[in-house]
Formats: sequence, C-alpha cells, structure tokens
Amino acid sequence: MINFTPGPSQLYFTVADHLKQALRDQVLSLSHRSKDFEKISIEATSGLRALLNIPETHSIVFTSSATEVWERSIQNLVADNCFHFVNGAFSKRYHEIATQLKKQAKAYEVKEGEGFTELSKIPTDTELIAVTHNETSTGVCWSVDKIHALKDAFPKALLVVDAVSSLPYPAFDFNKVDSVFFSVQKAFGLPAGLGVWIVNEACLAKAEALQSKGFVTGTYHNLPTLHSFAKKNQTPETPNVLGIYLLSKVTGDFLRRGITTLRKETEYKAALLYNALQNHSQAEVFVKDANWQSKTVIVANTGSQTKSISEALMAKGLYPGDGYGKAKETQLRFANFPAHSKEQYELLVDTLALI
Amino acid sequence: MINFTPGPSQLYFTVADHLKQALRDQVLSLSHRSKDFEKISIEATSGLRALLNIPETHSIVFTSSATEVWERSIQNLVADNCFHFVNGAFSKRYHEIATQLKKQAKAYEVKEGEGFTELSKIPTDTELIAVTHNETSTGVCWSVDKIHALKDAFPKALLVVDAVSSLPYPAFDFNKVDSVFFSVQKAFGLPAGLGVWIVNEACLAKAEALQSKGFVTGTYHNLPTLHSFAKKNQTPETPNVLGIYLLSKVTGDFLRRGITTLRKETEYKAALLYNALQNHSQAEVFVKDANWQSKTVIVANTGSQTKSISEALMAKGLYPGDGYGKAKETQLRFANFPAHSKEQYELLVDTLALI
Repeated sequence: MINFTPGPSQLYFTVADHLKQALRDQVLSLSHRSKDFEKISIEATSGLRALLNIPETHSIVFTSSATEVWERSIQNLVADNCFHFVNGAFSKRYHEIATQLKKQAKAYEVKEGEGFTELSKIPTDTELIAVTHNETSTGVCWSVDKIHALKDAFPKALLVVDAVSSLPYPAFDFNKVDSVFFSVQKAFGLPAGLGVWIVNEACLAKAEALQSKGFVTGTYHNLPTLHSFAKKNQTPETPNVLGIYLLSKVTGDFLRRGITTLRKETEYKAALLYNALQNHSQAEVFVKDANWQSKTVIVANTGSQTKSISEALMAKGLYPGDGYGKAKETQLRFANFPAHSKEQYELLVDTLALI
Repeated sequence: MINFTPGPSQLYFTVADHLKQALRDQVLSLSHRSKDFEKISIEATSGLRALLNIPETHSIVFTSSATEVWERSIQNLVADNCFHFVNGAFSKRYHEIATQLKKQAKAYEVKEGEGFTELSKIPTDTELIAVTHNETSTGVCWSVDKIHALKDAFPKALLVVDAVSSLPYPAFDFNKVDSVFFSVQKAFGLPAGLGVWIVNEACLAKAEALQSKGFVTGTYHNLPTLHSFAKKNQTPETPNVLGIYLLSKVTGDFLRRGITTLRKETEYKAALLYNALQNHSQAEVFVKDANWQSKTVIVANTGSQTKSISEALMAKGLYPGDGYGKAKETQLRFANFPAHSKEQYELLVDTLALI
C-alpha cells in the first residue's frame, strides 16, 4: 500500500534499512551523553544545514514534536502579545496555545481554503508573528516570498514559521525568518516522535531577556537550555535517540538526491494531481487561488463521491488521507512528500482518471 | 557486548524482533488518530495495569520523557509549595525544576549515598511531596513501605514518586501513592523517547482546580488534556508511536514471564553483585545502609582501580556504567534490569572475582 495521508505518512524508502543498521550498531541503547551520540547529532544538524541552507547564525534544537514547539516558542519569545495568521485547524491551535499561556494573542482569521491579503492587520508592536506555512488541514500554503515580505514590513517582530508539512520543499531565506520548525513524520518520511526547531540569535536574546525579567520560560526545554546543550551536540533530557539517528540518515539520503531534484519532483507531482483534479468530473481542487495552493498537501472536494473515490483508490493500494475534521465526509487529502515517487503519483492520477 | 549502564541500558532481548514486526505491520507510519493506534495504546496501558497492579482510579498518560513529567507534575499539581527529598543529581534536578517554575520548593537534602530519616521536616501544608524512589546517580533506593508510610503521615499532600530506574521492580500500593512515573529506556529495556505518567483522581482534581484559578498548567500536555485524550486511548500530539508499540510488546513479554519471577530474579542478581563487591579487595559497596541499597542500580566505590576494573570487565564484553558526575573516576554503576539475565550477572561476578 502507498500511504498518501499527510502525516504520519509514507515512510521514506530507506528507513527500514537504516533501522536495521541502527539495531546492528546498538544505536537503540546508546547513551545520550556519549561521543557516538554527539556524532549522530552533528550528522543530523549539519545535514539539515546543508539541505535547507541554514546559516550558523541559527541554532537547531530537538523537541519531542512540533506541537511542543508551539508551546515553547510562545513561552520563550513572547512577553505580552503575538499575532497569528489563522486559516484552519492547525494555525488555530497555535493561536489557542498562545491564549492558554495567557498572552494577548491576536488572530487574523480567514475562511478555510483561503489565503491572507491584509498585512495592515498586524499591530506594529507585535512581538511575534506566527505563520503556518502550510495549513495541513486545508492545503493552503504561503509562498516563501510573501513570508519574507512580512519580515521586511515588520522587522522588529520575531517571525516564526510552522513548516510542519512542507519542509524540505520551501526554500526559506533564513535572513528573513527568525524561527522555523517542523516534525519528522511528514515530509521527511520518518516515524513520529521528534520535532526540529530552528532559531536565530534574536530568538535566543529574547528568551534570555524574558528569563532575566522573571518570566517562566519552561525548565529543561527553555530555549537557552536547549541551545546550550545543542552547542555540545547534546540534549537536556534523554531524547528520542533513534529518531535523531534516522533523521540524520534520511537527511543524508535527501542530500545525495539533491534538494533541487526533490523540489522539482514535488512541483511535477503537484502539477500532475492538480491537473487531474481540474479535469475530473467528480472532484475539484478545494483551494481556488493558485497562489495559495499547497505543493505538499493537495486537498480535493469530493462531496458525496468521497467514499466511492476513496474505495476505488484503496482497491489499487493507494490510501488517500481523509478530509480534516468536519470535511472528513466531503474531502480527500493527498500528501506529496519525497517518499511519494513520481511513478506512484502517475499511478494515482491514472487511477483517478478512470473513476 | 552487555550494557550495564543504567540507561539508556541493554535492550530487552525481544525488542529487535518487535521492531521488525513493527516494520512489517507499518506501525512506523500509522496515524495516531486511527483505530489501530488506539489498539496499541490499550495494549500498552492494560498491560501496565496488569503488570504493576494499577487500579482504574489511576490514569496512565504518555509524555516524551520522565524529565518532561518533572515539569508537568509541578505545573499541574502545585500552586505554591512542594517538598523534595534530595540525595543525588536526579532528585536535585526535580527540585530545581520546581524552583524554575517559581514555586516555593523546599528540599530535605542528605549526603549522596544516604537515605532519609526525619519526616518531621515536611511542613504539614505541603501540596506535593516529591520522592525519587531510586536515585540513579548513587544507587540509593527507598523501600516501598517507607513511601507508603509517607502517605499515612501526610494524607493531604499529593505523593509523587519518580520511579525512573526502578519500575517494574517495586510493588507500589497505588492506594498509597498519588502519582508514579518512569521512562522506558531504563528497566523496560526499550529505546529512549517515551515517558509514562500514572496519576490518580486527586491529581486530576488538583490540576483542574489550578486551571480554574487561572494558573498556567501547560497547553497540549496539561494534565486534564492528557487525561481526556487517554480516555480515548489517544494522545494530544503526534506521539512516539513506535515507542508506545514497543512498550506494549515488552510489557506483554514481562507479563508472560511473570512479575514475581522478574522481581525474584532482580533480587537474586542484586544479592550476587552486592556479595561480590563485599568480598572484593579493590571495590566496595557505596551505599552502606542495607535498607537503602538499590536492587536495580548498584554502585561500587572503585577508587584508583576504576579504570583497571572497567577495562578488565570490558575485555569480557561487560560494559559497566561510569560513576555519575564527579564520581566518574572513582565509582562504577551496574544496572540490574530485566534485560540483564541471571547468566550475565553470574558472568559479571565471576569476572569481578578474578580481578
């Protein structure tokens, strides 16, 4: 079967072999205070730096999930107020977490399936702007240019980008984003249980300033502590060592294939599926504005035909993701990650054409 | 090689096979919102209930590590003040985390290698009593009777027990402890990256009361949220699905071997090693008072012979744990977990006798 659910999604095809190697090399009982662990950690972070063009000005730290980064980013980077672009369940949850942490969290909310146009809604004194690059629930995705333009327009605010279901596809300019995070079970094709949080020096300075003012910024995973251990290629707690090992290996595989190839293939496969949906009699593209259509999570309105289309695909071993939440009965979602080959996407669109 | 480091320690001998089965069954890309995940979650929690005799009055929730539970337990169970028994690096860190969270955290600190005698040091208005059942850094361990007696003496305080490097050995009476937690990379013989937190209804009520008073108790992992997802056999975030799967399988293996057998074997192996150390010319037992000697982490003073003893053991494939922190050059630590067989312990003491 091929798993098109947008996460946990299809494993990258090399993961099984890496796992067996990890067993042979006793990685699963490796001490997180050992030199061997530090080597794995270095391989993971230097691989990510090369793959995503992350400069040395940015620190890379490990958390247990991207959900954890929602909490840690607000705790460590916001004294009073933050601003959230909300257009679906996941961007809404990030905003809700800021509210639970008793911050003045403003939201600019648009309908599901839509993008954002009015930057004037951002107050100039906002400390943190939260952007969900790719809203996994609806398949709406920011262009990286629009995100970079936010930094130009609001240089004083920390710009934090949730890139959970898009990286490694987007080519962020890390001079224009202060922080980016993702989890590994989406487009990296890895088992769940690890988040990656990239932060620049401005974020670290903000967290330290909040600490010195007496704010509670967390304990073992406050940002200065995470950063101080990352400098030693370690983590404050016993981490998901196997997860970090597998990330290091798959990042290496991605580097060998080449980020340009991965990105071109993502665009090719997305074009195939959007074209197939536009020409389909029983389905249509949910996100109307092509400027906001995600390349990595493609959502189809399938209405009353949802069940029959889904069953016809599954009969061929192609497992689509359900629509999110209330759209479960009326939409299908298709992850388009490096783990999904061109051939699998060609099979998907050929099968769709016959339904 | 046999890994006697007290965590991450030797893998339980069935883990490699379970991991291969997980690959075949596509557990590594399983959705955490699927019925199949719920089945895994039920297998893990019902297995733990049977193994450790946990009543239905107690909820079992998953975190990313026991370190996380240090933070979450203080956030969710303490308004103002808590009391910590401190006799080593890990009990000290729990106390420090309470301080970082701006609580009035008192500590009754004794020297490393020693136990506690003066219960009168606990103020009667203490909200939470933190006990580190087995101080992994020094091999000092509470008897469960002493812990149960704390509850009798201070019935109003929540009694929270860090059992990181001891469970499943201790037979807690869950009517006498409000909360217990552990991480899976110690005595469960599993890869790191998962914590298990057991809480009773009094803990849940306290967390809800704090929330209603406006305390920040965390977001996705505040206790009421963890509990509400646990009731559905799910987790708030995408968890370490593979970790929960492996826990369910190894707990099943432990049940088939029988908890009484596991405990008897633990005691047999501990007696072997303590006896060997007592009769050794170049080593001695660090914890003098037999009432406080750990059965699961056995610490030897090896002084200037540390390196030579360690090397002699490693030459036979027996890898001891270093002494913790400043004791690295003068002590060795030996984990005694279900993953360490009687035969391995017999080989260990036979080898020690020849040094």
